[in-house]
Amino acid sequence: MKTFRIIPDEAFGAKPIIRIRDIDAVVHNYKLFKEKADFTNSSCGVVLKADVHGLQMNDVAPALYEVGVKYFFVEELCEGLELRRILPYEDAKIFAMAGLLHGEERYFKNSSIIPCINSLEQLDRWNRFCGENGKASVVIHLDTKMNRLGLLDYEVEILAKKFIEFTSSVQIEFYMSHFYDIKGTDHTNCFKQYDVLNLYLEKLPLFPVSFACTDSVILLDNRTFNLNIIRPGIGLVGGAPNALSPISADAKHTFEMYVKISQIKTVKKGESIGYGGAYTVKRDTRLALVHIGYKDGYLRILSETDENPKGVYVYMDGYRLPIIGKISLGITTVDVTDVPESTLQKFNYVEVVGPNVDIKYLADIAGCYEILAALGRPNNKIADYTLQKYSSLYSN
Amino acid sequence: MKTFRIIPDEAFGAKPIIRIRDIDAVVHNYKLFKEKADFTNSSCGVVLKADVHGLQMNDVAPALYEVGVKYFFVEELCEGLELRRILPYEDAKIFAMAGLLHGEERYFKNSSIIPCINSLEQLDRWNRFCGENGKASVVIHLDTKMNRLGLLDYEVEILAKKFIEFTSSVQIEFYMSHFYDIKGTDHTNCFKQYDVLNLYLEKLPLFPVSFACTDSVILLDNRTFNLNIIRPGIGLVGGAPNALSPISADAKHTFEMYVKISQIKTVKKGESIGYGGAYTVKRDTRLALVHIGYKDGYLRILSETDENPKGVYVYMDGYRLPIIGKISLGITTVDVTDVPESTLQKFNYVEVVGPNVDIKYLADIAGCYEILAALGRPNNKIADYTLQKYSSLYSN
Repeated sequence: MKTFRIIPDEAFGAKPIIRIRDIDAVVHNYKLFKEKADFTNSSCGVVLKADVHGLQMNDVAPALYEVGVKYFFVEELCEGLELRRILPYEDAKIFAMAGLLHGEERYFKNSSIIPCINSLEQLDRWNRFCGENGKASVVIHLDTKMNRLGLLDYEVEILAKKFIEFTSSVQIEFYMSHFYDIKGTDHTNCFKQYDVLNLYLEKLPLFPVSFACTDSVILLDNRTFNLNIIRPGIGLVGGAPNALSPISADAKHTFEMYVKISQIKTVKKGESIGYGGAYTVKRDTRLALVHIGYKDGYLRILSETDENPKGVYVYMDGYRLPIIGKISLGITTVDVTDVPESTLQKFNYVEVVGPNVDIKYLADIAGCYEILAALGRPNNKIADYTLQKYSSLYSN
Repeated sequence: MKTFRIIPDEAFGAKPIIRIRDIDAVVHNYKLFKEKADFTNSSCGVVLKADVHGLQMNDVAPALYEVGVKYFFVEELCEGLELRRILPYEDAKIFAMAGLLHGEERYFKNSSIIPCINSLEQLDRWNRFCGENGKASVVIHLDTKMNRLGLLDYEVEILAKKFIEFTSSVQIEFYMSHFYDIKGTDHTNCFKQYDVLNLYLEKLPLFPVSFACTDSVILLDNRTFNLNIIRPGIGLVGGAPNALSPISADAKHTFEMYVKISQIKTVKKGESIGYGGAYTVKRDTRLALVHIGYKDGYLRILSETDENPKGVYVYMDGYRLPIIGKISLGITTVDVTDVPESTLQKFNYVEVVGPNVDIKYLADIAGCYEILAALGRPNNKIADYTLQKYSSLYSN
C-alpha cells in the first residue's frame, strides 16, 4: 500500500478533477530502457504518440532530448509538426509511423519529418517528390504479417528487384517492423514474425533495423530482438505489456488523477444503481458520487454491472473502493460502505489513477492503453499539475 | 442511401481527419422539441453538457439563445463558467446538474450559475452561503430511485419537515428528476419513477417540475411526462434513445467525420489482421488503412474480431465498408474488397460518421453516446469545419 496524496481544496478551484503528470518519472523510465538497449549496443528511441499517451509532448520531449534522446517517433504528421516546433534541432530526428498520406509530402519535407513509408505507392511518391525537391530521409516499414501498416511480401519482392529505382532520391535511415501478438505468455507469433523479417531482409540491401518496442524489450530475448534501434512507448509512461510484466521493479508511475466527491448516500440491499438499473447492491450500501465519467475518458467499459463485473476500484487513504453501476457521462458511483465517517469527512476526493490504482491494471481490464490516452486528453474539467525539476509542486 | 460528401484534398491539409459540425441542424432539432413542449405548454430548455456532446458550446449556445432558449443545462460548474462567458445575459439561466461541490459556492454565486442541489448537505451549505452572501437560485434534484444524483426518500422526508429552514435564503426555480431505464421498449421503471416523484411532490411545497429529457419526450406520453420543463440533450445533436426511435422523421444529423486512407493492401483468405491476430479474413481481401483510432475517440469496443463481431462500418460513395480487426491507437482497417479500383482512386477518404453512418447506430453498438463525446473532443489531428448561417463552407 502506498501513500495517499494529500490535496488541498484550493488546488481543485472550480474543477472537480486534478491530474498530475510526472515528467521526471518519464525520464527515469527512459533510462531503464536505455540500459536494455546498451546491453546490445542498440540505440534507444522514444515513441511519443498520442501526446505521449496524455503526458504531453510539450513537457516530455525537451526533457528526453536533454538526456540524449535523438530518435523521436510519433504517429501522424500533425504530431510531427508539433514536435518539430518543440524540438527545432537538427540532431533530433522525428519519425511519423503512420506513413505518408497524399498531399502531405511538402509538410514532411519542410519540417524535416521522416515518414515511415508503409507501401510501395508511398515510397514511389516520396522518392519522386524528393527527386524534384531535394533528397530527404525515409524509414521503410516492413509488414511481417500483422497485415496492417507496411510493405507485405509481394511488395518486398518488387522493392528488392527495383530497389535503386524506388530509392534514388531518398536516404534510408532504417527498416522497421512491429509485433502484433505479445501481451500474453505464448510468443510463437513473435518468432514467426522474426522469421518473416529475416526473409525480407535477405532480399534487401543492408540497413539498420528497428523491431522492438516496449513489449518486446521486456518479454523477449534482448540479444535476438533488440536489433539496432529499440523504441519504447507506453513503458515510458509507466505502462507495460500487462500488469504482471512491469518493465522493471524500478519503473515509476507517471500519471495520477484525483476526483472530488459530491455527495454520499445510503441505499438498501437489493436496490439497483444508476442507468439501466444494471447493478444491484448486495448489502445496505453507502455510495459516494465522484465527478468523473466517460466524457472525461473514464471509459464506460470499466463499468461494474451484474452481468459484466470488471472489478475496477478507486482509492482513499488505505481503502480500495469498488466502482459500481454504469459509469455515466460525468459521474461514477463508488461503494464507500467500509470507509469510516471520519475518513470520508477528512478527504473529499478519491484516487482514480496513481500509486494505489495502477494504470497497468486499468489497461488490462480495458484491453489496452486507450484508458490512458482518454484520461490524458485536454479537458476543461481538469486542473493540471506537472512534476518536473524545479517545479513548485515538486514534493514527493 | 444519401449523398457522399465530396471533400477536396486541400481541406485536409496536414490533418488526416475532417470534422464537420452543423449548428443550424442543432437549432432545427431544438425546434422539433420545442413543438413537443408547446403541446403541453411546457418550457423547452437545452442540455449542453460535454461541450454539447462535441458540437461545441461556443457555436451552439448563441444560436439557441437567438431562437429564444432561456434554460441552459450543463453538467459541471466549469462548463457553466464557460457558458456564462458565452452568454453573459441576465435572462439566460444556467443550471449545473452535477451539484455543488465543496469550495465551489463562490464561483456559482459570482457567475449566477444555478446549482442543481443533489443532497441535503449541499442544500444546507448553499442556503447558508446565500444567507451570508445574498439570495440566489437553486434547483432541487429528487432521486426517484435511480440511486445516483439527488435527494433520496429519507432526505425528502427531512426536507419536507424543515423546508423553510433549508431554503430560507434561496429561491427555488424548480424540482428535477431523471429517468434511468428508458432505452428499451419496457417502460415499467419510468412509471415507477413517476409514482415515486409524485410521492415526493405531495410532501413538498409546490414548485415547477422538470422530469423529461430527450428519451422520455420521445418514448413516453407527453401529456403525463412533460410536466413544466423538458430538457432535451442528445436529441439536439441528432441522437435518440436508440436508432429505431429517432426524435422525428424531420430530425437532422449534426456531425460528420471523414478520414483519409494511407494505403491499400491485399491479404489472403485465412490470414489474420492487426493486434492479437484477432480477426481472420473469410476471403481474399483488400484492406484500406484509415487514419482514425481509439486515441481519436473511435472507441476500441467498436472493433470487429472473430470472437466479438460488432458490425461497424464506414462508407464510401455507395459502399458500406466493414471495419475489421482491432481498432488501434491511430489506425483502423477497412474491408474495401467490393469497391471498384476507380472509386478507390477517386476518393481517398471514408465517412466515419455522417449521413450514411448514423451516429445513433454507432451509439447503439457502443451502448451510449460516449462515441460522440469521444469523437467530438479537441484533437490536433482533426481539421474542423462548422456549418452555420453565413458560413463559407455552407453548401449542402
